Amino acid sequence: MSINFQEIIAKLNEFWSAPQSESLRDRGCLIVQPYDTEKGAGTMSPHTFLRAIGPEPWAVAYVEPCRRPTDGRYGENPNRFQHYFQYQVLIKPSPDNIQEIYLDSLRALGIKPEDHDIRFVEDNWESPTLGAWGVGWEVWLDGMEITQFTYFQQCGGIDCRPVSIEITYGLERLAMYLQEVEAITKIQWNDQINYGDIFLQSEVEQCTYNFEASDADLLFKLFALYEQEAKQLIARGLVFPSLDYVLKCSHSFNLLDARGVIAVAERTRYIGRIRNLAREVANLYLQQRERLNFPLQKS
Amino acid sequence: MSINFQEIIAKLNEFWSAPQSESLRDRGCLIVQPYDTEKGAGTMSPHTFLRAIGPEPWAVAYVEPCRRPTDGRYGENPNRFQHYFQYQVLIKPSPDNIQEIYLDSLRALGIKPEDHDIRFVEDNWESPTLGAWGVGWEVWLDGMEITQFTYFQQCGGIDCRPVSIEITYGLERLAMYLQEVEAITKIQWNDQINYGDIFLQSEVEQCTYNFEASDADLLFKLFALYEQEAKQLIARGLVFPSLDYVLKCSHSFNLLDARGVIAVAERTRYIGRIRNLAREVANLYLQQRERLNFPLQKS
Repeated sequence: MSINFQEIIAKLNEFWSAPQSESLRDRGCLIVQPYDTEKGAGTMSPHTFLRAIGPEPWAVAYVEPCRRPTDGRYGENPNRFQHYFQYQVLIKPSPDNIQEIYLDSLRALGIKPEDHDIRFVEDNWESPTLGAWGVGWEVWLDGMEITQFTYFQQCGGIDCRPVSIEITYGLERLAMYLQEVEAITKIQWNDQINYGDIFLQSEVEQCTYNFEASDADLLFKLFALYEQEAKQLIARGLVFPSLDYVLKCSHSFNLLDARGVIAVAERTRYIGRIRNLAREVANLYLQQRERLNFPLQKS
Repeated sequence: MSINFQEIIAKLNEFWSAPQSESLRDRGCLIVQPYDTEKGAGTMSPHTFLRAIGPEPWAVAYVEPCRRPTDGRYGENPNRFQHYFQYQVLIKPSPDNIQEIYLDSLRALGIKPEDHDIRFVEDNWESPTLGAWGVGWEVWLDGMEITQFTYFQQCGGIDCRPVSIEITYGLERLAMYLQEVEAITKIQWNDQINYGDIFLQSEVEQCTYNFEASDADLLFKLFALYEQEAKQLIARGLVFPSLDYVLKCSHSFNLLDARGVIAVAERTRYIGRIRNLAREVANLYLQQRERLNFPLQKS
């Protein structure tokens, strides 16, 4: 029996929690939990979006369930679900030998890089809603994209100094490769139960919701209320509660987008509204850490 | 150095994923991820709330971040946070020797039950919003409550046949005990970073939000919109999307409650409104699984 899905996660946790490099000052990554708000990417968790800002060192790894409503195919496309799991690593400052460390993480999963065709394909990354971008690569393993590598240049519109490295594994892709299965639904989650047993019904229903059943007027109202609450919380200087509402703005925008009710011209305006909020939250966070004297910068 | 917080989680995952008992038909628990919507308890995840219903066997374990706005103390009370982590196990049907298995899980964490004062104190459990209740015990370890044990009798108003056992560890309590520290903030998350480094600022701000800064009128509007969306999704028979909105109703009710804007007489009515939705979702789920011929009941 090949490695199952939950074992892949356990192995990655074990790997990244161990000290990897002197440039990490002998530190492994914190292993934290997914953030309890719907989001489109692991980058949106406060463990990345906020912690990538400012001078304090930080090293973290976590699983993050992501919802990308427009990507849904009612579970019928074998490798495209609107809900899936990322494995996210963020390390600041970026270790010099991070590519080697990453290849070691594949070894920990039983993939010998020397026996495979592994390519780093240039692919810069941008999140317009988060005001974040970076230079980076997609990692292709025998023709399948399994990871995104990004050196953060800006986050929330703020220049990253020092630069963080973000590594995002697509867990389903990796599992399909390791288990030699042709569909997400067929991934063994443990040795008895497969991914489809757990998530297929939910995937089909969430697609029906995203594309057909959601009440667009209601979603527009939610977006407006979330934005209103984010603004008043930003005015009070509350970083974390504000960020929660920015994430809610982002997810409700994604739902509206999937429902096909946002005109092309409006799209850019909506994204701009979310980005403005994200920038204000990022700035508040940096000011807050500065007032606290950047407490994790000791030594 | 004693066991750190992330190691406690890894150990529990390792323990519960291994086959524990013949009555589990040699099956270990699925290790799944936290659910990406704010919630007051691990029970509210679809992995418990829905899967506890109906005849299909099920065994799962996961961490669940919980938000209980009224419990917040601005991080000043050493063992009470409004945001904390539960470790949740649900097994259906309940194995006969589940108390022994549980004691073995403490051994896996380095606690020898024979050297300690471990008491099972009768404590039946009820969630009025979920229409769920069960008979059970609190587990006290040398005078500190560390776990809740519950045999589910009803879930979403539906009689549980067979009965599931739910085991909920309070991870912070357990960590404070194992690390011999006197405050949540002092728990070592890994060997370098403590719980307070990661979560104290967020805790203080979320308390400020819950008690002072949230816009109550806006929360009332959100509650009404969530309820409206839940109802139309229930009418369409969409189990998982409906449940998401029921959870949002529940969390916004909890926020209103913390804000002190719900009169005593209204409280019961709000809880009843949420319970009605939860029951409808539970019934829809049972019908759906019946139509699918209870697919996990094979063998």
